[in-house]
Amino acid sequence: MASILPGLRRRPFGPILASVMCEKGIEAMSDDTRTRLVPAIQAARAGAASGGIPIGSALFIDGALVATGHNRRVQDGSVIHHAEMNCLENAGRLPAADYARATLVTTLSPCDMCTGAVLLYGIPRVVIGENRTFLGGEDLLRSRGVDVTVLDDPECVEMMTAFIATHPALWAEDIGENEPTP
Amino acid sequence: MASILPGLRRRPFGPILASVMCEKGIEAMSDDTRTRLVPAIQAARAGAASGGIPIGSALFIDGALVATGHNRRVQDGSVIHHAEMNCLENAGRLPAADYARATLVTTLSPCDMCTGAVLLYGIPRVVIGENRTFLGGEDLLRSRGVDVTVLDDPECVEMMTAFIATHPALWAEDIGENEPTP
Repeated sequence: MASILPGLRRRPFGPILASVMCEKGIEAMSDDTRTRLVPAIQAARAGAASGGIPIGSALFIDGALVATGHNRRVQDGSVIHHAEMNCLENAGRLPAADYARATLVTTLSPCDMCTGAVLLYGIPRVVIGENRTFLGGEDLLRSRGVDVTVLDDPECVEMMTAFIATHPALWAEDIGENEPTP
Repeated sequence: MASILPGLRRRPFGPILASVMCEKGIEAMSDDTRTRLVPAIQAARAGAASGGIPIGSALFIDGALVATGHNRRVQDGSVIHHAEMNCLENAGRLPAADYARATLVTTLSPCDMCTGAVLLYGIPRVVIGENRTFLGGEDLLRSRGVDVTVLDDPECVEMMTAFIATHPALWAEDIGENEPTP
């Protein structure tokens, strides 16, 4: 079991799932939606296995998996290859009509940059593993008409919680914040 | 002289410059600010010379040029290396304290993705060559406290106007829009 960050209190999952189901309808929380999180988690695990930040992403078009990606700050010294960006890059050049039928899945709530990429390409649906350890541009996405589903997945929460506890300076750098004081 | 897109009317430069000067103060439109546009334009020209989209960017920290970059959609098949993103990537991994003293210069108004990157890294100043051919997330930047200066530079306008007229499908792809009908 991953350790929990000091001050980070785990909320019970049940009521949150229920509220999402109520808001989005049962179909938004279907097995299919949860299944789409699997390749994103696998990408995050692969990123962690190669010494990187454990955030992964997957792009689906018409329900088919098109690409996956993970954060590459450590592996490539990259400041723009967040998981979602890396996934979009791996998917390659696509016409707007393809993005318009896409779902971008990410293990963690997308930061401002990744939020902007979703808006630029007009991706209509975003599925988020969790937003407890970091809350990105979800409100902006919704305000621009993007369908946002937060799965509040325990595996995603524990993956990030453990990482942040053991790599606070690297995490701060990745989200453009000052290094935390010990 | 570059041709002007059908329906794209060139506005006179004088009144716009005057209004910016009035809004930002003379110092914001100083020779120093205009000088900072030069490496961004050079990067845009280099991108065009290698067959790409003519948008360039430059990052300054404490007034010193740290990196330049240009759009690499054509050259690398990249969907995330817009000019500003490529410039940030070329600058490498930086602590938040460095971004906090930075100015990002771009020949063209930043799209949603590049706007988000500025917000993620807390870059406090953005200098824009022109926003006549494309208007990006300037309002969002200002709403989040970023100091935005639009130089309305004729060279930047003509560079993009000529490119859009000759490469409408490529331009549409770069900003996530459907290919224009002939």
